[in-house]
Amino acid sequence: MNVTIRGRTQHFRTVAFDAKKNAVLLIEQRLLPHEFKIVATKNFHETAAAIHDMVVRGAGAIGATAAYGLAQGALAFHGDNVQKFSAHVATVYEVLKGARPTAVDPVNAMNDVRAAMANGKSVEEKQSLALAAAEEFANEDVEHCKQIGKHGAKLIRNGMKVLTHCNAGWLAFVDIGTATAPMYAAQAAGKKFHVFCDETRPRSQGATLTAWELAQQGVPHQIIADNAAGHLMQRGEIDLVIVGSDRVLGRTGEVTNKIGTYTKAVLAARHKIPFYAAIPLSTIDWNLKSGFDIPIEERSESEVLGAWGNLKSGQRAYVRVANPSSGARNPGFDVTPPELITGIITPSGIFKPRDLWKKRRKLGYPGS
Amino acid sequence: MNVTIRGRTQHFRTVAFDAKKNAVLLIEQRLLPHEFKIVATKNFHETAAAIHDMVVRGAGAIGATAAYGLAQGALAFHGDNVQKFSAHVATVYEVLKGARPTAVDPVNAMNDVRAAMANGKSVEEKQSLALAAAEEFANEDVEHCKQIGKHGAKLIRNGMKVLTHCNAGWLAFVDIGTATAPMYAAQAAGKKFHVFCDETRPRSQGATLTAWELAQQGVPHQIIADNAAGHLMQRGEIDLVIVGSDRVLGRTGEVTNKIGTYTKAVLAARHKIPFYAAIPLSTIDWNLKSGFDIPIEERSESEVLGAWGNLKSGQRAYVRVANPSSGARNPGFDVTPPELITGIITPSGIFKPRDLWKKRRKLGYPGS
Repeated sequence: MNVTIRGRTQHFRTVAFDAKKNAVLLIEQRLLPHEFKIVATKNFHETAAAIHDMVVRGAGAIGATAAYGLAQGALAFHGDNVQKFSAHVATVYEVLKGARPTAVDPVNAMNDVRAAMANGKSVEEKQSLALAAAEEFANEDVEHCKQIGKHGAKLIRNGMKVLTHCNAGWLAFVDIGTATAPMYAAQAAGKKFHVFCDETRPRSQGATLTAWELAQQGVPHQIIADNAAGHLMQRGEIDLVIVGSDRVLGRTGEVTNKIGTYTKAVLAARHKIPFYAAIPLSTIDWNLKSGFDIPIEERSESEVLGAWGNLKSGQRAYVRVANPSSGARNPGFDVTPPELITGIITPSGIFKPRDLWKKRRKLGYPGS
Repeated sequence: MNVTIRGRTQHFRTVAFDAKKNAVLLIEQRLLPHEFKIVATKNFHETAAAIHDMVVRGAGAIGATAAYGLAQGALAFHGDNVQKFSAHVATVYEVLKGARPTAVDPVNAMNDVRAAMANGKSVEEKQSLALAAAEEFANEDVEHCKQIGKHGAKLIRNGMKVLTHCNAGWLAFVDIGTATAPMYAAQAAGKKFHVFCDETRPRSQGATLTAWELAQQGVPHQIIADNAAGHLMQRGEIDLVIVGSDRVLGRTGEVTNKIGTYTKAVLAARHKIPFYAAIPLSTIDWNLKSGFDIPIEERSESEVLGAWGNLKSGQRAYVRVANPSSGARNPGFDVTPPELITGIITPSGIFKPRDLWKKRRKLGYPGS
């Protein structure tokens, strides 16, 4: 999407590749929203470190980063010994996989690249196929988000107030994003609407990343405390909710997403406000049979007990907010049942969550 | 309640009076939870400033502070001219009233003190009646909270997990508190239970004040992000919710409280978890006919856009968390309808919210 730096507007992808320098180009997300900087990783080790250290985060974005990282590693190989090349690529694969061991996207993305390489005979041919496959992975991620935007934009009417939670924006993908895609498409179609960004404690991705994205694209928005959405719904100030998801169960229609999503869905249902989750098809888990089988990561207490931000001087700092002798519980995600979800916005259209299984052939069910 | 400083445990009231020094003693709440300090105001101007500057906050606590402040002002008068004394007291009254013009508690408390003074003939007699009335106001506040504790403690059973929102603890009253009173009484009765404190963004009173209180009394507790309660309820980890209130409508049973209370009530109702508000009778508003008539204060954006806490050095600091170019909405309170509230815990017993009007004669309805 567009970013304006010192009055100059430029288009950026969250993840891109510089073929001349054999470098992966990443938006340094840890500095946002206070500073915008592009990082160029010089080799696959640096790319793995960028995934590990959260320079880049979000399902689509780390998938594309790993795909480019594998191509980058392959391209750095000198010589024409195919066997040695394959051993080298296997190492690159393991290093990148180890950067975020619980994530499924980097593995899926790298498997695509490896499958493409298998069609090449020489090292040179395999190298060129690897880069082409990585580029294709990234382009497809963008295309999927565009399709989500196309379908989802119909839900946004002039004058609407739209609530979103956490960040499922372009920073979490290669471009455009999922929950934000309908907003950007509606904006492009000339619609006027207002977005409320939940702060999304404890990591505040709504107040930092989503608010920054919307500001860059000129979408009118305000940040609210996670506590405020219920009151605004009660007073008729929210018309639509769109969130992303980390995992949607294809068999049940349950939606896993950042902690607090379930709460917003319960409130929306009470107020008869439509509640949508926007996802690429790769987010659908066709295996699990119940949301209660999804492990909910318990994250660091320090996230709840304080906050990161900028001091007046511009220096980044952590402040301890909470009582020093108290501890915290910090579940990172929650699961929203299908009866609270109006629809799942996918690149293939909008589906009722309980219809995913019925429509699985259309939705990328393995083997279909 | 008890506070332990450098290993020594002492009992403190939030508000007390030093008759020898004619000083109001206040816990400096702006330093909590990081520092515990008692402030002694030297005259009624300093007492008014302490109310205005939020050294002391909470309905019961500012009521008692104003009552003591009026007595303090009266006691500072030299001479025996009753007319001059009355003019002086009128000035003291106006200064203290002006310290927090929207609050009703200081006015009610000072009216009690003035009514008592009217029974005195000499200046000396009036002065002594003023102090006695202020002491009585403070003692009654404590007695009301004790009664709330007695009734509410029955709701807490061994092994329960109790959620509370914001701070309706002893720091908001003269002692004991309202939402916390059942907890302290259950603890005194030897019951074992666990409390989850909602962080309560944007001002974080749960993470700071309530967590500090519970830690001082040795009540096992954990702080959670406001986003987490829904998930914990879904997984069966919350058995009971007790909150305070700023205003309960006697005619409808609607409960006004810190922003986010309504959300917790909606979640509790969905999970069939009992939800109680604990209040002194002075919190009941017998006039308003609808919760929609309650003005909801829109507070400063900076509360939502950042956080106050302590740096590693121990220095207090504000960090800007949010995107620098984004703004915020910040409603301070919300209104919970009676159908979501299991009961109102009062010093006179526990009532269904819709029964308040029926039982108004028992509940201090004016003129009854």
